[in-house]
Formats: sequence, C-alpha cells, structure tokens
Amino acid sequence: MEENEVKTTNISEIGEFGLIDRLTDKITFFNDNSLKGVGDDAAVIDNKEQMTLVSTDILVEGVHFDLTYTPLKHLGYKAAAVNFSDIYAMNGRPTQIVVALAVSSRFSVEAVEELYSGIRLACERYKVDIVGGDTTASKNGLVISITVMGVADRDDIVYRDGARPNDLLCVSGDLGAAYTGLLILEREKAVFMANPDMQPELGGNDYILERQLKPEPRRDIVERLKAAGVKPTSMIDVSDGLASEILHLCKDSKVGCQVYEDRIPMDPLTVKTAKYFKLVPSITALNGGEDYELLFTVAQSDYDKIKEMEGIRIIGYMTADTGNAVLITPDEHSVPLRAQGFKHF
Amino acid sequence: MEENEVKTTNISEIGEFGLIDRLTDKITFFNDNSLKGVGDDAAVIDNKEQMTLVSTDILVEGVHFDLTYTPLKHLGYKAAAVNFSDIYAMNGRPTQIVVALAVSSRFSVEAVEELYSGIRLACERYKVDIVGGDTTASKNGLVISITVMGVADRDDIVYRDGARPNDLLCVSGDLGAAYTGLLILEREKAVFMANPDMQPELGGNDYILERQLKPEPRRDIVERLKAAGVKPTSMIDVSDGLASEILHLCKDSKVGCQVYEDRIPMDPLTVKTAKYFKLVPSITALNGGEDYELLFTVAQSDYDKIKEMEGIRIIGYMTADTGNAVLITPDEHSVPLRAQGFKHF
Repeated sequence: MEENEVKTTNISEIGEFGLIDRLTDKITFFNDNSLKGVGDDAAVIDNKEQMTLVSTDILVEGVHFDLTYTPLKHLGYKAAAVNFSDIYAMNGRPTQIVVALAVSSRFSVEAVEELYSGIRLACERYKVDIVGGDTTASKNGLVISITVMGVADRDDIVYRDGARPNDLLCVSGDLGAAYTGLLILEREKAVFMANPDMQPELGGNDYILERQLKPEPRRDIVERLKAAGVKPTSMIDVSDGLASEILHLCKDSKVGCQVYEDRIPMDPLTVKTAKYFKLVPSITALNGGEDYELLFTVAQSDYDKIKEMEGIRIIGYMTADTGNAVLITPDEHSVPLRAQGFKHF
Repeated sequence: MEENEVKTTNISEIGEFGLIDRLTDKITFFNDNSLKGVGDDAAVIDNKEQMTLVSTDILVEGVHFDLTYTPLKHLGYKAAAVNFSDIYAMNGRPTQIVVALAVSSRFSVEAVEELYSGIRLACERYKVDIVGGDTTASKNGLVISITVMGVADRDDIVYRDGARPNDLLCVSGDLGAAYTGLLILEREKAVFMANPDMQPELGGNDYILERQLKPEPRRDIVERLKAAGVKPTSMIDVSDGLASEILHLCKDSKVGCQVYEDRIPMDPLTVKTAKYFKLVPSITALNGGEDYELLFTVAQSDYDKIKEMEGIRIIGYMTADTGNAVLITPDEHSVPLRAQGFKHF
C-alpha cells in the first residue's frame, strides 16, 4: 500500500509564511475591481470614486493572547487596533469593521460584553463603525476574527513595493516595548502559577505593559505625513518585528538596505527590561513584534520635511543591492538582517 | 463581599440572538458611508457610484462541522458558499472574500490546501476573488472565518424590512434536505463509533447529503428575478430554518403572515428520510436550517411574472396583522409560527 500513501507535511516545516504562499499562489482574479490581493497590509478594491481597503486578522486564545493576564476589554481594543493599523499602513483611513467571535460556554454574557466594549472603545477613538458580525459557540476558548475596511484616494495608497535605492528608511515611535511587556507578564504568570498567593509585581512597568496590552495604531503619523506633503514610497506596519518588516519592504521593492542598529528607537524602560532578561536590547526591537509602529521609506528629497518630524526616526536607507539587507552595528560591523518573527506553529 | 459580586449570565440563558442584541444595541456610526449595519444579511457601505455589501461568517470545528464525515474540500466550498448566499440575499453579487483560518498542528499542509481548494472552487464557480486572509495556529481544532464583499446598485438592494401586507411570500428550491442529510451522517457516525469495522450506508441519499455537505447559493434565482423585472420587496437566506427566517421578515417589516404548510416545497427523499427518523416532514423544513435557499416577498402585481417561474414556490402572503405569523395546516388549523433555529450555545 505504500505507493498510495499521500504525502503529508507538518505546517511547522514550512512555517506560517510558507503555508500562506502555498495557499495563495494559485489565486486568479475574476473581477476588474480587485486591484491588489494577498501580499500587502490590505487588499485594494476599486470602487471608482474611491478605493476600499480590506484586511483581516484572527486572534486565538492560547496562541495570541493569555486571559490570565489580559483584561478582556484591552483584548477587544487590541483586536480592533491591530486591524486599523493595517489600513493606516496603506496610508488609508479605517471606516468599518465586522466582528466574528467564537466563545466557549465558560464565558458569561457580561464577559463577552466586556470584550465588545473594548472593541467599541477603539472604534470610537478611531471613528470606525461596527457594521456586522457573527457570534457563535466554540468548543474551547475564544477566537476573535475582525475584518476591517477603509478608504483612500487612488493616488494616496502606499504599497510595500515602492521603495527605491537611496530612499530613507524611517520608523515611528519606539520598538521592542510590546515584547518586553510580554516578558514581564509571563514572568508574573509563572510566579503566580508557582504560588497563587503571590501578588504580581507589575509596578513601574506601565509603559511597556500598555504597549503589549493596548497598542495604539499610528493614525497620527499618517496624518502628520499628509499634512507635511510627504507620501511614503513604501510602508508596512511592525507586527512581526522590525527585521521581518524591513525584509518585506526590500523583497517586494526589489532593493537592499543598510540599517544602523544604534538608530533604532527604543524607550529606556525597554532597554532596561531587555537587560534584566539578559537580552541584547536591539534584539527585542528587531524580532519582538507587536509594536504596531509604521515602517516606511521616503524619497531623499523629503529629507528636510521629515528630519525634525515628531515621532519619526530615520534608521537607514535603501540600496540598489537587491536582496542584501544589512544591519550596521555600533562598532561598524555589517551583519545580514534575519527575520525571526513570531512562530505560532 | 456579596454586594460586590458581579452579575454573570450564562450565554445559553439569552441565546445567540439575545447575545448579539446585547452586543450591538450600543453601536453608533461615525461615517456617512455606513448605510446599513447589523441586522440584515449584509451591511451596506455607500461607495458613491456603487454600494459595497459586507458579511461575515465564522465556522468552528465540533460546533458547525464534524470532520469525521465532512471532506475538507466540501467544507471549504460550503464556508465560501454560505457567505455568497448572504450577498445574494441582498440582491447583490459577491466579488471578493478574505479568509481567516486557525489550524491546529494535527492538520498537515496538504489538509489545509485541500480545504483551500474547496474555497477556491466555490470562488471560481461564483466568480469571486480571494483578496486576503490570515492563517494562524489554534490550540484545538479548525476555525474558518470568511468575510465576503459584494456589489449592488443602490436601487437594487433588497432589505429585510420592505415586505408589505398582501405581498406574496416565496421560497426557492426545496427545504429540509440539508437537515435530513445531517441526520443520515450522524446515524452513520454513531454506527461507526460503535463498530469501526462497519462501512457507512450512505447509498441512495446523494441528494440530501450533497445539500448538507456542499450547498449552492442561489445566484440563479437572483438573476432570474432580475431578468423578469421582479425586484423582491424583502429577502433573506434560509440558514436557520424557514420559520426563523419568516419571523425575521415579519418583525423587520412590521407585518404578519399566513403560510400554508402544504405549500412548503420538499424533495420526496427529504420527506421519506424525515419519516424514517419519525419526524413530521414539514418540521425539518421549518426548523432544520442550512438550506441556503432564498425567502422573499414580491408585490401582488408581480404574480403573473412569478407564478410559473422555475424553482420558485409561493407559500403564503403577508398580512397587516403585525407580529402575527401563522402556519395554516393541511386540515386548516392556524398555529403560530415558532422559531427553533439552531442552538449552538
């Protein structure tokens, strides 16, 4: 019977990106208004006068969040916020979401309402409408699947593939905070598991905990760039870690880059916490993920407009050396950038 | 401490519809282009020249499907098809989907590809583009969350609230087949569980098994009505059972109705199978669900256009007796219509 055996491959062998490639490489389009599909922060649908942007994220209990230390309201807020971030990363504005929930019977009505109140709070803050959803039972745990739609003028949309050699590589805010916040939460969970009478020691870590539990998408950066008349040449949001996102921009734009390690913006508390956990601080920025900052490139000619802009740091530049993404260490060594990203499988 | 206790309510106390009401009653809109939100088969977003329709469905292993008798390819097909059905129920045309999957490590890459090939097959048949998605790990089992977008001209959209007294109540195809197909599959599963050497006896049940495992959304009905110049006054797809859907139209349109039990279209195999399981056949149509037929109302003036139309049956009419939905039995008794629907919680 052996010759009839069907080949099976563990998902972990090819990883999340490998699986997505295998699933999506056979896709063809039937509709003229499908402008851009899989492979950017959001899809683009041509609705003649304006473009509709669409993106979806699914969050699974025990994989993406741990309810022992994640308040339900924060979880709802974050689930919505990370979707908005995908639309801002296209230089668009989120306008509607649909919310699909699968909830096990151990959740009460009030618990689901608490989760939903967080989604609603994010929607109020970012002026997004909840226009639909589906709520159903699950066998175990909680699954949150949100699809966001947004709008943009055709000429305003920024894709991942527009970076050109000599463009400046910029990032908003600071990086690595969400990951170090997670390390603190995991430490306190381990203490609590060992001895349930212990109270968690979270004091003094507010900034990095908030970055992990309640991230804010960078609408302000999109608006600031627009007000200054700067349109990025490429853009992506930092969900899987800076290194992974830089490599996406390089690959899709068919360019290389030089990134200066000592230019990567980090909060002092992130640095301190990384050191406490015996980690090289820049590693938490490069590979930590969940920062939901914007990583983008601008033309050299926009340098004067961008150099003093609040909340934006130039961390390197793109090169014609296609495929060669390099990190320059403080002691001026060049090392290839590698994506660790998050491994869920 | 008792006065500080937080009230908790089991979801089963208020049910799926009750939960959705609790979650959505506080929603307000911030965007002018959000025309219609929660409460119809799809939301409607005004994109000036054309309207975008949006709907989402989440399917959970062990709640909505059982992989012991559901081929993965059929499951993918059905997950897409039920979303398309929501767009047809608005008198629109589905154009794009985004696909979010959560997959446990017991699934191989090939298994996920098989699932996806079913989604792709449905998309090819109905000319819908897969424009995005998210694929991630789950702790247990498989979750499929699909969001569909569609298009319609503003004046073509049919809502649930447009039925008027004296309108004719119509349904496409036949009802109850998907539920009786499920009964056969559950019977054979029970036999197999008791004795794994037994082969399943599925022969002769092809029609009802296909209706359960691989339903087709009724694009043909939408096109036929349009070709005949008939615009329904209200419409909904039959996912939770005929009774539940009739009550939705009555409630949203603020009318009553009279439905003739002997007019409900059923396939002979559905009737035979229902009797085999000692069920009143019409109960499988009224409460079975998952038929994905279209239930709609038309003005009396369209009677001549609709009376001979293939695949459409007039089963009753709407009345001015708001809130009073009545089933007329073959022996001319009137009984109130009640929704059993599916109970997942």
